[in-house]
Amino acid sequence: MSKNLEVSNLLDFYGGLLTDKQRETVEYYYNDDLSLGEIAENLGISRQGVRDSIKRAETVMIDMEEKLGLVKKTRELRRSLDTIRHNIDIIDERNMKVYRSNAINESIKVILKELDRLSNE
Amino acid sequence: MSKNLEVSNLLDFYGGLLTDKQRETVEYYYNDDLSLGEIAENLGISRQGVRDSIKRAETVMIDMEEKLGLVKKTRELRRSLDTIRHNIDIIDERNMKVYRSNAINESIKVILKELDRLSNE
Repeated sequence: MSKNLEVSNLLDFYGGLLTDKQRETVEYYYNDDLSLGEIAENLGISRQGVRDSIKRAETVMIDMEEKLGLVKKTRELRRSLDTIRHNIDIIDERNMKVYRSNAINESIKVILKELDRLSNE
Repeated sequence: MSKNLEVSNLLDFYGGLLTDKQRETVEYYYNDDLSLGEIAENLGISRQGVRDSIKRAETVMIDMEEKLGLVKKTRELRRSLDTIRHNIDIIDERNMKVYRSNAINESIKVILKELDRLSNE
């Protein structure tokens, strides 16, 4: 696995399933962009130990994603929420410009609040 | 853990993380409501073996829920989606009765489709 966003994504979901050492090495490597040598020095373990720890962490997380698919499901959820928000904006604009309904406006506010809450999770 | 809905919920999310034997014993016990003795006979293992397998499966799933919280998060997601749908219904009714805007109607349709998709996941 190359250094990429994917591992940061996996870490967000499955970081809690790693050992402290696995999580530390992976975060140093992928989030902080340290070299294997730098991580080895920081943690007082061998370069090969760092490499093994990262490899094991990746295997755990990729295995979990295959079984639970949280990264994929969350991506799909965000896409749906974006579609809903886009259409709420259309309704909102239409209502503001033409109909000026308080009832519609109140419901839009509640929906936008829920969408914000879901987007921040 | 008593026989309850909670374990069926956990199974929906974490069943894929169990061994075949763990999943089988738990499904027989919680979903099909078989006795330990009946499950033992079905699988050709001891009653104690069934009990141990169920216990381990529960431990795995409860541990995963503590770390990932998927049952809890999904419950919260459904609550938000219900709130959004309720408010879309209000907007829809208002629009149908009073304003009869095609633009609003089209956006409502798109949103309802997304909500259906999310509810079925």
